Amino acid sequence: MSERTRTSRQRLFARGLALALSAGVALASLGLAAGAFAAAPTLSDEQFKDAQFIYFDRCSGCHGTLRKGATGPAINDEEMLKQKLSKLEETIFEGTDAGMPGWGRTGDLTQDQAKLMSKFLQLPAPIPPEMGLKEMKASWKVKVPVAERPKKQQHDYDIDNMFGVILRDAGKGAFIDGDSKELVSIVDTGYAVHIFRASATGRYFYTIGRDGKVTMTDLYAKKPAVVAEARVCLDARSVDVSKYKGPKGDFIDKYALVGCYWPPQMVVLDGQTLEPLKVISTRSSTYDTNEYHPEPRVATIVASHHDPEWVVAIKETGMVWLVDYSDLDNLSMTQIATERFLHDGGWDATKRYLLIAANMRDQIAVVDTKEKKFVTKFETGVKPHPGRGANWDDPKYGPVSATTHLGEGLIVVYGSDPAGHPEHAWKVLREEETGGPGLFLKTHPNSNHVWTDATLAKDEGDNQQICVFKKDDFDAGANCWQATDRGKIVHFEYNKAGDEVWTAVWDKDGEIIVYDDKTLEVKKRIKGDWLVSPTGKWNVYNTVHDVY
Amino acid sequence: MSERTRTSRQRLFARGLALALSAGVALASLGLAAGAFAAAPTLSDEQFKDAQFIYFDRCSGCHGTLRKGATGPAINDEEMLKQKLSKLEETIFEGTDAGMPGWGRTGDLTQDQAKLMSKFLQLPAPIPPEMGLKEMKASWKVKVPVAERPKKQQHDYDIDNMFGVILRDAGKGAFIDGDSKELVSIVDTGYAVHIFRASATGRYFYTIGRDGKVTMTDLYAKKPAVVAEARVCLDARSVDVSKYKGPKGDFIDKYALVGCYWPPQMVVLDGQTLEPLKVISTRSSTYDTNEYHPEPRVATIVASHHDPEWVVAIKETGMVWLVDYSDLDNLSMTQIATERFLHDGGWDATKRYLLIAANMRDQIAVVDTKEKKFVTKFETGVKPHPGRGANWDDPKYGPVSATTHLGEGLIVVYGSDPAGHPEHAWKVLREEETGGPGLFLKTHPNSNHVWTDATLAKDEGDNQQICVFKKDDFDAGANCWQATDRGKIVHFEYNKAGDEVWTAVWDKDGEIIVYDDKTLEVKKRIKGDWLVSPTGKWNVYNTVHDVY
Repeated sequence: MSERTRTSRQRLFARGLALALSAGVALASLGLAAGAFAAAPTLSDEQFKDAQFIYFDRCSGCHGTLRKGATGPAINDEEMLKQKLSKLEETIFEGTDAGMPGWGRTGDLTQDQAKLMSKFLQLPAPIPPEMGLKEMKASWKVKVPVAERPKKQQHDYDIDNMFGVILRDAGKGAFIDGDSKELVSIVDTGYAVHIFRASATGRYFYTIGRDGKVTMTDLYAKKPAVVAEARVCLDARSVDVSKYKGPKGDFIDKYALVGCYWPPQMVVLDGQTLEPLKVISTRSSTYDTNEYHPEPRVATIVASHHDPEWVVAIKETGMVWLVDYSDLDNLSMTQIATERFLHDGGWDATKRYLLIAANMRDQIAVVDTKEKKFVTKFETGVKPHPGRGANWDDPKYGPVSATTHLGEGLIVVYGSDPAGHPEHAWKVLREEETGGPGLFLKTHPNSNHVWTDATLAKDEGDNQQICVFKKDDFDAGANCWQATDRGKIVHFEYNKAGDEVWTAVWDKDGEIIVYDDKTLEVKKRIKGDWLVSPTGKWNVYNTVHDVY
Repeated sequence: MSERTRTSRQRLFARGLALALSAGVALASLGLAAGAFAAAPTLSDEQFKDAQFIYFDRCSGCHGTLRKGATGPAINDEEMLKQKLSKLEETIFEGTDAGMPGWGRTGDLTQDQAKLMSKFLQLPAPIPPEMGLKEMKASWKVKVPVAERPKKQQHDYDIDNMFGVILRDAGKGAFIDGDSKELVSIVDTGYAVHIFRASATGRYFYTIGRDGKVTMTDLYAKKPAVVAEARVCLDARSVDVSKYKGPKGDFIDKYALVGCYWPPQMVVLDGQTLEPLKVISTRSSTYDTNEYHPEPRVATIVASHHDPEWVVAIKETGMVWLVDYSDLDNLSMTQIATERFLHDGGWDATKRYLLIAANMRDQIAVVDTKEKKFVTKFETGVKPHPGRGANWDDPKYGPVSATTHLGEGLIVVYGSDPAGHPEHAWKVLREEETGGPGLFLKTHPNSNHVWTDATLAKDEGDNQQICVFKKDDFDAGANCWQATDRGKIVHFEYNKAGDEVWTAVWDKDGEIIVYDDKTLEVKKRIKGDWLVSPTGKWNVYNTVHDVY
């Protein structure tokens, strides 16, 4: 083994740095400190692989594949070597006051696994491979060719009122008839699916797994089944479709876009077959310091209704990219500087403004997708997490939007009508307590209610609460109740009519609770051994039309 | 030293790969073969550093910083370990028939240096550091603040007819009065400057060094001097300015854009002070296979006259990016798929079409910058190298453009008037022999001549030739003569009137030869001990207005 072999990355970096310095440029501290690994622990290949999977499953979402930090702090090996293994193990098991879950306390990791992870974090982060079209196509399967699919729906359900439900830990998705509450079909999906999205006609439902596997289900089929699938990332969170039809072309049900966490890129797919068509790298510079980031992840994708465009939030760089899909070979986009660590967001009521959380900056950023520019950003509370958000007419302030928060039990309401109510636009107008730190809120134009969960509340019971606000009497505060005695309450979705609200009991032995939105009475509890860890759910009509 | 320390990059890659494979995706061969370094040679840090600089200076331009290949083939360590050191040393010293210079034969490298480089190539390529705004600003110097600069020119020279000349090996630039041929001033530049560009008014001249140092010289000053400089890359080739004034704003003398080879990015600078403003990464996927490329280099930048836009050729990915500079915080661009390994190019006569060489594909690609889309590509000869090109009216075919070639002594003429002569547009119309493989050709609307060099001809004498074609009798072939008995002839530039042609004797003891364009007689030989290795030269008016 030669000297070079042993020098490893540190030496390569140091030598690169030496060239730069000898050429007279003052460069920031780069690369790996010499001897940083002197105290590093040793893991067998099998242990390393186990730890790598646990990291992917539990840690990378917040800390990043390369451990450079995002929603959670940077936890690279140099930083971790400054801490004792026992302290690291404790943090992993018990969590932190800053919001990190205690993975031991939640029952997700054993003490031995926490110990394993403490060692893993003191070793350099392995760099996963890239994925290009060739690798993606190797995984691509069309299970039912377009020509063999039915010309019209083969059942009597109202597709517009069907619901897709994530069965997270089962790696499956369920399709439920919104009228009868009947289970229509269960399909295989990727690992720990994050979201569903409906195609522009509502015929197809797309799912994206944490493992980067995207599937599409044909709701026209007698028993809706997966008609195509592909794996286009090693880690992913988002998918959306092309929704534009107008002077610039007809893109209805034409494309899907998957946003990857790793590799840091987005992938355009054929909307009918999931054939991977085009890869758009997100590796780029941060919006503020203009320094290169090796892992800018696609946080959220929202499809524009007024332009052939996807609105794509790039987490680490704090940029929103408007990606025009009308000509993939001559692809135009606008890259808009907003705020760092973008997470989730959605439209205002007019579908002109994207309201997106920069949750590690406690801010909501506003992007004007018509003028294609940044509007403003403002503070709300500790780690805003709007999901896609909630829009309604406030009797005092006019059109408003709102967010819940990961870091505190707070709903914050802000003006979102710069044309009609410029004096209130993008200003915080109301703040009310919810049941606890939560993930989602939801409303519907036909409803007087705004629903909030408290999924992240630390104490059992608290996280089983639902709190509902009245639009016409918001100051009165929430009407809250405990909706289940097991699992956690997470996520709401209205039916098409806007008179029913569906929520999930997130538990191995899960449940969907359907409420009458007017009376807040339970209309139906959907149960069954197939209801394994339900989380997000999407009504076809509301998803197609971005009703929230 | 722990086990992990010794595992080095191979192991990290292998582990990343294992995760990917275990997740069920067939991935292409990635990372480094196990044991690839078993036979790798050993270099001391000092030897490594010397070799690294030689690589930067002589090799990286064609083979890439990461040695993945471009104009030259991939020469990564795995490939190089398959060859004997003695064979590698011979290739480095003697060159190849495929066009690689024999660096020993040219006198640039000693036998010991060729031996050193053979070993260096069998070691993994070191990865140079990144550069963000912070590092760039550390090197940024405003030597004469804007407020202290003269309001009008302080001399009687006609700025429009001044010439900037690269003094390559001296790390300097000379400014020469085009009327009197008098040396006006010599300024310090970066290392081995590649090009000069004039600001839109012609007042400022920008230079870009191979070391990424950009300078600007104020031609209004009595003795034009560098008024600002910054180092914004570790390796660079291109710079251009903002030239647009119209309904979308006045950007005259407002910005400069530097194109980097490493880090792979472009940098927007204030046109008055060279303050680095914005970094745009070019790391992205190839146009065809859509696989991630870690080092897509900025080959050429051309400023649009009809839009606030830079046309930027990204070499390795085969993309042309139209970068709109009218709103840097909401930056829009169009990324156009063309052909791989883009190199140099320029406008057609109307300044609507970019004609750009994909020289490793023996092709010219055409981009329509008004419609913002790819038009076509077509073969010309072995490694076309148009510089910025040459445009004229052919008596038979109408408006045409032309290129010389690195790989053969050939000028190829093609139609470039799709509106007036669609039957000839983007078709090869004429082919004539030149004096040998060359770098540049040049003409002027007021001239009947097209000038070509043969700088890359292998035999001394041949590379000292000039060949001139007549537009009105192209079929007659070239009038060629040997213009010097030392050095090489390289590059042509017309004066503003278009009745004089300047060329350089590229030699330590260099010379500028000024020809009467009508008679082809020598009008003047500009000499002086300051004329060290002159190469490119730019007339202010012709550079501002893209007259070629």
